[in-house]
Amino acid sequence: MQTKQRLIVDMDGVLADVYSQFLKMEEEEFGIRQPRENLLGRPESEVFKHERKYVATKGFFRNAPVIDGAVAAIKELNDKYDLFIVSAAMEFPLSLPEKLEWLKEHFPFLTWHQFVFCGSKTIIKGDIMIDDHFKNLDYFTGKTYLFTQPHNYNQDNKHHTRVSSWEEILGILL
Amino acid sequence: MQTKQRLIVDMDGVLADVYSQFLKMEEEEFGIRQPRENLLGRPESEVFKHERKYVATKGFFRNAPVIDGAVAAIKELNDKYDLFIVSAAMEFPLSLPEKLEWLKEHFPFLTWHQFVFCGSKTIIKGDIMIDDHFKNLDYFTGKTYLFTQPHNYNQDNKHHTRVSSWEEILGILL
Repeated sequence: MQTKQRLIVDMDGVLADVYSQFLKMEEEEFGIRQPRENLLGRPESEVFKHERKYVATKGFFRNAPVIDGAVAAIKELNDKYDLFIVSAAMEFPLSLPEKLEWLKEHFPFLTWHQFVFCGSKTIIKGDIMIDDHFKNLDYFTGKTYLFTQPHNYNQDNKHHTRVSSWEEILGILL
Repeated sequence: MQTKQRLIVDMDGVLADVYSQFLKMEEEEFGIRQPRENLLGRPESEVFKHERKYVATKGFFRNAPVIDGAVAAIKELNDKYDLFIVSAAMEFPLSLPEKLEWLKEHFPFLTWHQFVFCGSKTIIKGDIMIDDHFKNLDYFTGKTYLFTQPHNYNQDNKHHTRVSSWEEILGILL
Protein backbone atom coordinates (compact mmCIF):
# COMPACT_ATOMS: atom_id res chain seq x y z
CA MET A 1 0.00 0.00 0.00
CA GLN A 2 1.33 3.39 -0.98
CA THR A 3 1.08 6.04 1.71
CA LYS A 4 -0.86 9.12 0.70
CA GLN A 5 1.00 12.41 0.49
CA ARG A 6 0.14 14.88 3.20
CA LEU A 7 -1.48 18.04 1.86
CA ILE A 8 -1.66 21.13 4.11
CA VAL A 9 -4.33 23.67 3.15
CA ASP A 10 -4.60 27.16 4.63
CA MET A 11 -7.99 28.61 5.53
CA ASP A 12 -8.14 32.43 5.31
CA GLY A 13 -7.52 33.57 1.74
CA VAL A 14 -7.49 30.01 0.41
CA LEU A 15 -10.77 28.47 1.57
CA ALA A 16 -12.40 31.46 3.27
CA ASP A 17 -12.93 34.69 1.36
CA VAL A 18 -11.85 37.17 4.04
CA TYR A 19 -11.49 40.05 1.57
CA SER A 20 -15.24 39.98 0.98
CA GLN A 21 -15.71 40.34 4.71
CA PHE A 22 -13.24 43.23 5.00
CA LEU A 23 -14.80 45.10 2.08
CA LYS A 24 -18.32 44.55 3.39
CA MET A 25 -17.54 45.67 6.94
CA GLU A 26 -15.62 48.69 5.73
CA GLU A 27 -18.50 49.68 3.49
CA GLU A 28 -20.91 49.31 6.41
CA GLU A 29 -18.66 51.52 8.56
CA PHE A 30 -17.65 54.22 6.06
CA GLY A 31 -20.18 53.91 3.26
CA ILE A 32 -17.48 53.41 0.63
CA ARG A 33 -16.37 50.22 -1.05
CA GLN A 34 -12.68 50.21 -1.94
CA PRO A 35 -11.95 49.37 -5.57
CA ARG A 36 -9.97 46.18 -6.08
CA GLU A 37 -7.00 48.11 -7.56
CA ASN A 38 -6.35 49.67 -4.12
CA LEU A 39 -5.73 46.25 -2.62
CA LEU A 40 -3.17 44.86 -5.02
CA GLY A 41 0.30 44.10 -3.67
CA ARG A 42 -0.37 45.70 -0.28
CA PRO A 43 -0.83 43.92 3.08
CA GLU A 44 -4.39 43.68 4.42
CA SER A 45 -3.33 45.62 7.51
CA GLU A 46 -2.38 48.55 5.27
CA VAL A 47 -5.41 48.68 3.02
CA PHE A 48 -8.03 48.06 5.71
CA LYS A 49 -7.44 50.67 8.42
CA HIS A 50 -9.64 48.79 10.91
CA GLU A 51 -8.47 45.30 9.96
CA ARG A 52 -7.81 44.21 13.54
CA LYS A 53 -11.18 45.44 14.73
CA TYR A 54 -12.97 43.56 11.94
CA VAL A 55 -11.25 40.21 12.54
CA ALA A 56 -12.06 40.52 16.26
CA THR A 57 -15.75 41.14 15.47
CA LYS A 58 -18.22 38.33 16.17
CA GLY A 59 -19.20 36.68 12.90
CA PHE A 60 -16.20 37.80 10.86
CA PHE A 61 -14.90 34.25 10.37
CA ARG A 62 -18.20 32.44 10.89
CA ASN A 63 -19.91 34.27 8.03
CA ALA A 64 -17.06 34.45 5.52
CA PRO A 65 -18.05 33.20 2.05
CA VAL A 66 -16.27 30.13 0.69
CA ILE A 67 -13.78 30.81 -2.09
CA ASP A 68 -15.06 29.66 -5.50
CA GLY A 69 -14.58 25.98 -6.15
CA ALA A 70 -13.03 25.22 -2.78
CA VAL A 71 -15.64 22.77 -1.51
CA ALA A 72 -15.68 20.55 -4.59
CA ALA A 73 -11.89 20.67 -4.86
CA ILE A 74 -11.27 19.76 -1.22
CA LYS A 75 -13.75 16.88 -1.54
CA GLU A 76 -11.75 15.45 -4.43
CA LEU A 77 -8.35 16.12 -2.89
CA ASN A 78 -9.47 14.56 0.39
CA ASP A 79 -9.78 11.20 -1.37
CA LYS A 80 -6.32 11.29 -2.88
CA TYR A 81 -4.33 13.00 -0.13
CA ASP A 82 -3.86 12.88 3.62
CA LEU A 83 -5.42 16.30 3.93
CA PHE A 84 -5.17 18.79 6.79
CA ILE A 85 -6.64 22.29 7.15
CA VAL A 86 -4.15 24.43 9.08
CA SER A 87 -5.17 27.91 10.17
CA ALA A 88 -3.43 30.63 12.15
CA ALA A 89 -6.20 31.32 14.66
CA MET A 90 -4.55 31.77 18.02
CA GLU A 91 -4.25 35.57 17.97
CA PHE A 92 -8.01 36.06 18.04
CA PRO A 93 -9.68 33.75 20.60
CA LEU A 94 -13.16 34.29 19.17
CA SER A 95 -11.98 32.95 15.84
CA LEU A 96 -11.34 29.46 17.27
CA PRO A 97 -14.94 28.25 17.69
CA GLU A 98 -16.07 30.31 14.67
CA LYS A 99 -13.52 28.68 12.39
CA LEU A 100 -14.38 25.22 13.67
CA GLU A 101 -18.11 25.79 13.06
CA TRP A 102 -17.39 27.22 9.62
CA LEU A 103 -15.33 24.17 8.62
CA LYS A 104 -18.00 21.79 9.90
CA GLU A 105 -20.70 23.63 7.95
CA HIS A 106 -18.95 23.96 4.61
CA PHE A 107 -16.74 20.85 4.65
CA PRO A 108 -18.91 18.25 6.42
CA PHE A 109 -16.98 15.39 4.77
CA LEU A 110 -13.83 16.33 6.72
CA THR A 111 -13.39 15.31 10.36
CA TRP A 112 -11.99 17.20 13.36
CA HIS A 113 -8.88 15.01 13.16
CA GLN A 114 -7.96 17.01 10.04
CA PHE A 115 -8.07 20.49 11.59
CA VAL A 116 -5.17 22.39 13.17
CA PHE A 117 -5.34 25.88 14.68
CA CYS A 118 -1.99 27.38 15.50
CA GLY A 119 -0.05 30.57 16.01
CA SER A 120 2.96 29.71 13.87
CA LYS A 121 2.96 27.21 10.99
CA THR A 122 6.69 26.51 11.32
CA ILE A 123 5.73 23.47 13.42
CA ILE A 124 3.75 21.77 10.65
CA LYS A 125 5.17 18.90 8.62
CA GLY A 126 3.79 17.60 5.37
CA ASP A 127 4.51 17.07 1.67
CA ILE A 128 2.54 19.87 0.01
CA MET A 129 1.35 23.25 1.34
CA ILE A 130 -1.15 25.66 -0.22
CA ASP A 131 -1.14 29.09 1.44
CA ASP A 132 -1.46 32.75 0.48
CA HIS A 133 1.33 33.98 2.78
CA PHE A 134 5.08 33.80 2.22
CA LYS A 135 5.63 33.73 6.00
CA ASN A 136 4.00 30.29 6.06
CA LEU A 137 5.34 28.83 2.83
CA ASP A 138 8.93 29.96 3.38
CA TYR A 139 9.37 27.64 6.40
CA PHE A 140 7.78 24.59 4.83
CA THR A 141 10.12 21.84 3.67
CA GLY A 142 7.77 20.25 1.11
CA LYS A 143 6.35 21.51 -2.19
CA THR A 144 4.73 24.93 -1.86
CA TYR A 145 1.89 26.66 -3.75
CA LEU A 146 1.18 30.37 -3.32
CA PHE A 147 -2.54 31.01 -3.66
CA THR A 148 -3.05 34.38 -5.34
CA GLN A 149 -4.77 36.97 -3.17
CA PRO A 150 -4.73 40.76 -3.57
CA HIS A 151 -2.01 41.18 -0.90
CA ASN A 152 0.46 38.87 -2.67
CA TYR A 153 -0.37 40.13 -6.17
CA ASN A 154 2.82 40.85 -8.14
CA GLN A 155 4.95 39.96 -5.09
CA ASP A 156 8.30 38.37 -5.79
CA ASN A 157 7.90 34.63 -5.87
CA LYS A 158 10.97 32.57 -6.70
CA HIS A 159 10.41 29.57 -4.46
CA HIS A 160 6.71 28.85 -4.63
CA THR A 161 4.45 27.85 -7.50
CA ARG A 162 1.72 30.42 -7.92
CA VAL A 163 -1.86 29.17 -8.30
CA SER A 164 -4.86 31.43 -8.79
CA SER A 165 -7.91 29.19 -8.50
CA TRP A 166 -9.01 25.83 -7.15
CA GLU A 167 -9.54 24.71 -10.73
CA GLU A 168 -5.87 25.35 -11.40
CA ILE A 169 -4.87 23.44 -8.25
CA LEU A 170 -6.93 20.42 -9.26
CA GLY A 171 -5.22 20.46 -12.65
CA ILE A 172 -1.87 20.11 -10.90
CA LEU A 173 -2.65 17.85 -7.94
CA LEU A 174 -5.10 15.35 -9.40
CA MET B 1 24.30 31.18 16.47
CA GLN B 2 23.09 27.76 17.44
CA THR B 3 19.43 27.08 16.72
CA LYS B 4 17.36 26.06 19.71
CA GLN B 5 15.88 22.59 19.76
CA ARG B 6 12.13 22.50 19.34
CA LEU B 7 10.33 21.11 22.38
CA ILE B 8 6.69 20.00 22.03
CA VAL B 9 4.74 19.84 25.30
CA ASP B 10 1.30 18.27 25.67
CA MET B 11 -1.39 19.95 27.78
CA ASP B 12 -3.89 17.50 29.33
CA GLY B 13 -2.13 15.13 31.73
CA VAL B 14 1.20 16.94 31.37
CA LEU B 15 0.43 20.58 32.23
CA ALA B 16 -3.26 20.34 33.18
CA ASP B 17 -4.37 17.96 35.90
CA VAL B 18 -7.47 16.52 34.22
CA TYR B 19 -7.69 13.57 36.63
CA SER B 20 -8.47 15.96 39.47
CA GLN B 21 -11.32 17.34 37.38
CA PHE B 22 -12.69 13.88 36.54
CA LEU B 23 -12.55 12.72 40.17
CA LYS B 24 -14.15 15.91 41.43
CA MET B 25 -17.00 15.90 38.90
CA GLU B 26 -17.66 12.22 39.46
CA GLU B 27 -17.80 12.76 43.21
CA GLU B 28 -20.22 15.65 42.70
CA GLU B 29 -22.43 13.42 40.53
CA PHE B 30 -22.31 10.13 42.45
CA GLY B 31 -21.06 11.09 45.90
CA ILE B 32 -18.15 8.66 45.71
CA ARG B 33 -14.49 9.41 45.01
CA GLN B 34 -12.71 6.61 43.18
CA PRO B 35 -9.53 5.41 44.87
CA ARG B 36 -6.38 5.95 42.84
CA GLU B 37 -5.79 2.18 42.51
CA ASN B 38 -8.89 1.90 40.31
CA LEU B 39 -7.34 4.21 37.73
CA LEU B 40 -4.00 2.55 37.17
CA GLY B 41 -3.26 1.13 33.74
CA ARG B 42 -6.80 1.72 32.44
CA PRO B 43 -7.93 4.32 29.89
CA GLU B 44 -9.79 7.35 31.25
CA SER B 45 -12.81 6.42 29.13
CA GLU B 46 -13.02 3.11 30.99
CA VAL B 47 -12.60 4.33 34.56
CA PHE B 48 -14.77 7.45 34.25
CA LYS B 49 -18.15 6.30 32.93
CA HIS B 50 -19.21 9.85 32.08
CA GLU B 51 -15.83 11.00 30.77
CA ARG B 52 -17.24 12.46 27.56
CA LYS B 53 -19.95 14.35 29.40
CA TYR B 54 -17.39 15.85 31.81
CA VAL B 55 -14.95 17.06 29.14
CA ALA B 56 -17.86 18.67 27.28
CA THR B 57 -18.93 20.52 30.45
CA LYS B 58 -18.28 24.26 30.66
CA GLY B 59 -15.31 24.89 32.94
CA PHE B 60 -13.77 21.41 32.73
CA PHE B 61 -10.61 22.66 31.00
CA ARG B 62 -10.77 26.25 32.19
CA ASN B 63 -10.68 25.25 35.88
CA ALA B 64 -8.25 22.35 35.74
CA PRO B 65 -5.44 22.64 38.30
CA VAL B 66 -1.89 22.94 37.00
CA ILE B 67 0.29 19.86 37.47
CA ASP B 68 2.90 20.31 40.21
CA GLY B 69 5.99 22.15 39.10
CA ALA B 70 4.80 22.73 35.53
CA VAL B 71 4.80 26.54 35.56
CA ALA B 72 8.33 26.96 36.92
CA ALA B 73 9.64 24.19 34.64
CA ILE B 74 8.06 25.61 31.47
CA LYS B 75 9.44 29.04 32.35
CA GLU B 76 12.98 27.63 32.49
CA LEU B 77 12.57 25.41 29.43
CA ASN B 78 11.12 28.30 27.44
CA ASP B 79 14.47 30.08 27.71
CA LYS B 80 16.51 27.14 26.47
CA TYR B 81 14.16 25.62 23.89
CA ASP B 82 11.94 26.66 21.00
CA LEU B 83 8.89 25.61 23.00
CA PHE B 84 5.39 24.80 21.74
CA ILE B 85 2.31 23.66 23.65
CA VAL B 86 0.37 21.25 21.44
CA SER B 87 -3.04 20.07 22.56
CA ALA B 88 -5.66 17.80 21.03
CA ALA B 89 -8.65 20.09 21.40
CA MET B 90 -10.65 19.81 18.20
CA GLU B 91 -13.11 17.12 19.34
CA PHE B 92 -14.70 19.41 21.91
CA PRO B 93 -15.33 22.91 20.52
CA LEU B 94 -15.87 24.45 23.94
CA SER B 95 -12.38 23.38 24.96
CA LEU B 96 -10.76 25.69 22.40
CA PRO B 97 -11.36 29.07 24.08
CA GLU B 98 -11.12 27.48 27.55
CA LYS B 99 -7.70 26.01 26.84
CA LEU B 100 -6.45 29.28 25.38
CA GLU B 101 -7.63 31.24 28.43
CA TRP B 102 -6.10 28.65 30.76
CA LEU B 103 -2.72 28.88 29.03
CA LYS B 104 -2.78 32.68 29.13
CA GLU B 105 -3.62 32.67 32.84
CA HIS B 106 -1.09 30.11 34.05
CA PHE B 107 1.71 30.63 31.51
CA PRO B 108 1.62 34.39 30.86
CA PHE B 109 5.28 34.36 29.73
CA LEU B 110 4.37 32.27 26.66
CA THR B 111 2.80 33.89 23.57
CA TRP B 112 0.00 32.73 21.28
CA HIS B 113 2.61 31.96 18.64
CA GLN B 114 3.58 28.97 20.80
CA PHE B 115 0.15 27.32 21.00
CA VAL B 116 -1.24 24.66 18.69
CA PHE B 117 -4.68 23.03 18.96
CA CYS B 118 -5.17 20.05 16.72
CA GLY B 119 -7.06 16.84 16.20
CA SER B 120 -4.11 14.61 15.35
CA LYS B 121 -0.51 15.26 16.43
CA THR B 122 0.94 13.28 13.51
CA ILE B 123 1.33 16.60 11.71
CA ILE B 124 3.68 18.13 14.30
CA LYS B 125 7.43 18.34 13.74
CA GLY B 126 10.02 18.99 16.40
CA ASP B 127 13.04 17.58 18.23
CA ILE B 128 11.58 16.54 21.60
CA MET B 129 8.02 15.62 22.63
CA ILE B 130 6.61 15.24 26.14
CA ASP B 131 3.19 13.57 26.19
CA ASP B 132 1.21 11.09 28.28
CA HIS B 133 -0.25 9.17 25.31
CA PHE B 134 1.45 6.55 23.17
CA LYS B 135 -0.81 7.51 20.24
CA ASN B 136 0.97 10.87 20.10
CA LEU B 137 4.52 9.80 20.91
CA ASP B 138 4.52 6.80 18.54
CA TYR B 139 4.27 9.03 15.44
CA PHE B 140 6.87 11.58 16.50
CA THR B 141 10.26 11.35 14.81
CA GLY B 142 12.29 13.09 17.55
CA LYS B 143 13.14 12.12 21.12
CA THR B 144 10.05 11.13 23.14
CA TYR B 145 9.20 11.31 26.84
CA LEU B 146 6.17 9.54 28.28
CA PHE B 147 4.77 11.54 31.18
CA THR B 148 3.42 9.14 33.79
CA GLN B 149 -0.32 9.36 34.35
CA PRO B 150 -2.64 6.75 35.85
CA HIS B 151 -3.82 5.54 32.41
CA ASN B 152 -0.29 4.73 31.20
CA TYR B 153 0.90 3.29 34.52
CA ASN B 154 2.70 -0.01 33.97
CA GLN B 155 2.00 0.16 30.24
CA ASP B 156 4.59 -1.33 27.95
CA ASN B 157 7.06 1.34 27.00
CA LYS B 158 10.00 0.30 24.84
CA HIS B 159 10.42 3.38 22.70
CA HIS B 160 9.82 6.32 25.01
CA THR B 161 11.68 7.51 28.10
CA ARG B 162 9.30 7.57 31.04
CA VAL B 163 9.29 10.69 33.23
CA SER B 164 7.12 11.09 36.31
CA SER B 165 7.48 14.71 37.35
CA TRP B 166 8.52 18.10 36.03
CA GLU B 167 11.48 17.99 38.42
CA GLU B 168 12.66 14.84 36.67
CA ILE B 169 12.21 16.45 33.24
CA LEU B 170 14.28 19.48 34.25
CA GLY B 171 17.04 17.13 35.45
CA ILE B 172 17.17 15.67 31.93
CA LEU B 173 16.53 18.67 29.69
CA LEU B 174 18.43 21.46 31.43
